[in-house]
Amino acid sequence: MKSSLKTPLYKLADLISGLDVTLQGDPNCLIGGVSPIQQSQPGHITFLTNSLYRKYLATTQASAVILTEDDAASCTVNAVISHNPYFTYAKIAAFFAEQAEMTVGIHPTAVIGIHCQIDASAVVGANCVIGNNVKLGAHVVIGHGSVIGDGVEIGEATQLDARTTIYHKVKIGQRSRIASGAVVGSDGFGFANQKGVWHKVPQLGSVEIGDDVDIGANTTIDRGAVENTIIGNGVKLDNLIQVGHNVCIGENTIIAGGVAIAGSVVIGKNCMIGGTSSFAGHITISDHVMITGMTAVTKSIREPGVYSSGIVGAVTNKEFRKNNARFHRLENLIQRVKTAELALKELTERNKS
Amino acid sequence: MKSSLKTPLYKLADLISGLDVTLQGDPNCLIGGVSPIQQSQPGHITFLTNSLYRKYLATTQASAVILTEDDAASCTVNAVISHNPYFTYAKIAAFFAEQAEMTVGIHPTAVIGIHCQIDASAVVGANCVIGNNVKLGAHVVIGHGSVIGDGVEIGEATQLDARTTIYHKVKIGQRSRIASGAVVGSDGFGFANQKGVWHKVPQLGSVEIGDDVDIGANTTIDRGAVENTIIGNGVKLDNLIQVGHNVCIGENTIIAGGVAIAGSVVIGKNCMIGGTSSFAGHITISDHVMITGMTAVTKSIREPGVYSSGIVGAVTNKEFRKNNARFHRLENLIQRVKTAELALKELTERNKS
Amino acid sequence: MKSSLKTPLYKLADLISGLDVTLQGDPNCLIGGVSPIQQSQPGHITFLTNSLYRKYLATTQASAVILTEDDAASCTVNAVISHNPYFTYAKIAAFFAEQAEMTVGIHPTAVIGIHCQIDASAVVGANCVIGNNVKLGAHVVIGHGSVIGDGVEIGEATQLDARTTIYHKVKIGQRSRIASGAVVGSDGFGFANQKGVWHKVPQLGSVEIGDDVDIGANTTIDRGAVENTIIGNGVKLDNLIQVGHNVCIGENTIIAGGVAIAGSVVIGKNCMIGGTSSFAGHITISDHVMITGMTAVTKSIREPGVYSSGIVGAVTNKEFRKNNARFHRLENLIQRVKTAELALKELTERNKS
Repeated sequence: MKSSLKTPLYKLADLISGLDVTLQGDPNCLIGGVSPIQQSQPGHITFLTNSLYRKYLATTQASAVILTEDDAASCTVNAVISHNPYFTYAKIAAFFAEQAEMTVGIHPTAVIGIHCQIDASAVVGANCVIGNNVKLGAHVVIGHGSVIGDGVEIGEATQLDARTTIYHKVKIGQRSRIASGAVVGSDGFGFANQKGVWHKVPQLGSVEIGDDVDIGANTTIDRGAVENTIIGNGVKLDNLIQVGHNVCIGENTIIAGGVAIAGSVVIGKNCMIGGTSSFAGHITISDHVMITGMTAVTKSIREPGVYSSGIVGAVTNKEFRKNNARFHRLENLIQRVKTAELALKELTERNKS
Repeated sequence: MKSSLKTPLYKLADLISGLDVTLQGDPNCLIGGVSPIQQSQPGHITFLTNSLYRKYLATTQASAVILTEDDAASCTVNAVISHNPYFTYAKIAAFFAEQAEMTVGIHPTAVIGIHCQIDASAVVGANCVIGNNVKLGAHVVIGHGSVIGDGVEIGEATQLDARTTIYHKVKIGQRSRIASGAVVGSDGFGFANQKGVWHKVPQLGSVEIGDDVDIGANTTIDRGAVENTIIGNGVKLDNLIQVGHNVCIGENTIIAGGVAIAGSVVIGKNCMIGGTSSFAGHITISDHVMITGMTAVTKSIREPGVYSSGIVGAVTNKEFRKNNARFHRLENLIQRVKTAELALKELTERNKS
Repeated sequence: MKSSLKTPLYKLADLISGLDVTLQGDPNCLIGGVSPIQQSQPGHITFLTNSLYRKYLATTQASAVILTEDDAASCTVNAVISHNPYFTYAKIAAFFAEQAEMTVGIHPTAVIGIHCQIDASAVVGANCVIGNNVKLGAHVVIGHGSVIGDGVEIGEATQLDARTTIYHKVKIGQRSRIASGAVVGSDGFGFANQKGVWHKVPQLGSVEIGDDVDIGANTTIDRGAVENTIIGNGVKLDNLIQVGHNVCIGENTIIAGGVAIAGSVVIGKNCMIGGTSSFAGHITISDHVMITGMTAVTKSIREPGVYSSGIVGAVTNKEFRKNNARFHRLENLIQRVKTAELALKELTERNKS
């Protein structure tokens, strides 16, 4: 974010209006952008949420810093004191986010089906294809080149970026956001084997997506086999995530990039799932579970807590080869210990006698 | 699937017509939908394929249940007795699958190249772009917003969902289905290093996809470097799978979501590959191999069987940290066992003397 | 590549013109295509870069072989002698790569914003949507169905395949190539938790992509949170890769398919990253690091070298289950060794006395 003639300037007092913060400094200070604390510049606001960056506070060039009360004393510029500086930053940064200007209404190149109910305040981008019986609420945005199937319903203020696909009958709540390339409602992966040949099992369910859900770029969410796949309110999904059929993800759970969730998995509320973790099918994860990145989850988890799997952490390839060899010789080691134990027992008894 | 005025009703006798099943009950019973056995409702048919759900059989509200002969005696409603209830379910459920209504012919917004042979019964959706010299067989469906390259040939009754990309010269058989966002025929990942800089190696091959193949959402299949990448008849690929250049996948092999297959891998027929498994390049997997999910396959597998790798299964992060520490101290443990063995030997000899 | 009437024939002398090679044989030999050495045919040129294939050299049907000086003596046909046969092959194969014929200029179905600067030699495909203030350099190609956001700048001779998305303000250098389905500049995954609810953190940065970069099919690159995500010159990214916000990838680094890179990771120059490896956030990888496939990188790597992690290599599921059991009983083994050591010590002392 470079400052430029076009960037508006905001009074600090206006940026924090309505937020649960205390200002230490000049409410009339003009702010034109944000920058990271280690590279901040005059006229910008920055934030301190990570103790590793505390060393930059004393010399920051920023005009204001969002921080906790503990750090406020060390702040020589305007301080916005918050119990949750990152949340406060999120609210203030929104002033500097550029909104793509999309013209309200249906672009003349869009193809619209019959019996649709499209709110007059909605945006349907260029080259979109909207099926029959589609309902788009107020202020919905359908990005350019998106394809929306028959009977889809999208709630107020939900925004789809360019080139998304929403299959037939999927329902999406309010204020949700779907990034480019995401596919929602493709058929679940169900095949019945008969004499060595796989036969498609029709996927009769759909997908229900709640309010305030975020779905990342090129993420895929399959429709249910019989019942629906369900993504709860406030769920946040990163890019390139696979959500199998009949998965249920509880409210306010957040899942990082590259995670794969097999069919019929139930994940609770307020979970945090690290990147590239995998879930085997038909398992249940309770509320408030944190799974660290790269974890292979193969069984249900019944208790809140932090869980991980496997051997992680890169070592030199030489060490790795040795580790693998040692690992695959574990049985040999166990046998040697057994042999030693027996020999010891014998010796000990002989010594006793 | 809610019952509604629009849902057609079928006589049980009609639903099972032509299937290798025995009916125990009323052939005139009317069925209007399917539901899972634990939540079944009157007027619906359900199925019992998993012994975990047997407990629901006695109290099911369904009007009919598909099950094996062993379970038929416990069934108090109409019973469709099958050697393979899941396959029977797949056939019956097809009656209740909604077909998207796409108008036969080429949508006026589609852009069509020269010298194409598009069967009169084919569907080309809105905003598609079809290259030159493309052949589309009878009843082919090209979903909205798809892009089909020059010289592509697609066999009878194959269906591409919305927003797929088929690069030039790719050939696809009959009755195959490709989900939204899939990309078939992008360049393989080939670069030659000259003095630290990577130079593109032209990818001169193509992709051949057989009959009855399923390809999931956002899956990518690269074209071959010199010869073709080949996907055999009856292969089923889930979402977000990467298939590298010159891979060959044998007939009726099924691969779950998130699997990555490096270049020149050969996978046999009738294999089952679990989700998020990875294959190193240039290896060969024989027929009838099952790879469990999350497996790292680094060498060829010559014998049928079930294979797995690594340490899977999430444990508490505390336990995980201890496991990792123990693992990385294995060498130390081995040395300690060696030392103990030597001491034992010495003691034993001394005791003998 | 079948020979056909349409395939042009080239004199060997013309194919090697300008390359740092020596010809052993007939410069007027006509070449009409390439084939792999084990299946080569008359009229084709092939190459020998892998010692596993040396056995085919004596009997090759090819009209010419690209190889090193060491292999030239064994070559009975025309030999193109090179220090780097694979690089030489890449250059020669380019003669036989088919170019998709795209008509220069803006397709009438494309939708173009205001204030764009589109070079007269550029190609904008059918059904593309180009935002406002977009700059496209000479010979740029925008594939059919692509969506380019406001303020995007794309340098000379860069080519985007069909159905790519470039979000607003992204900058792409010269001679880069982006495959179908790739998404560049979607919002980074940033959310601040306030009382259990996740609030979006605006992503104010963008993405800068250098010259000669390749980006694979359905790969996703997020825009930065405050500053930009940066992909250096000459970087090669395969398919289905996730690049988080604020990642920096150094020049000439090559990354295979399915890799996931969490936010704020810095990867050095000239690195090679194997497929499906994962990088935890906020770590730094130095120049000239090779990471083997399927590696979980959780800490910074400061020294050049080859690195790996975990237990790889598929074994039978039975062996795998035993390995997992042994692994999870390591603590037990350690305790047994401890006990044996104590008993030994006691015995030894008793024997001394």
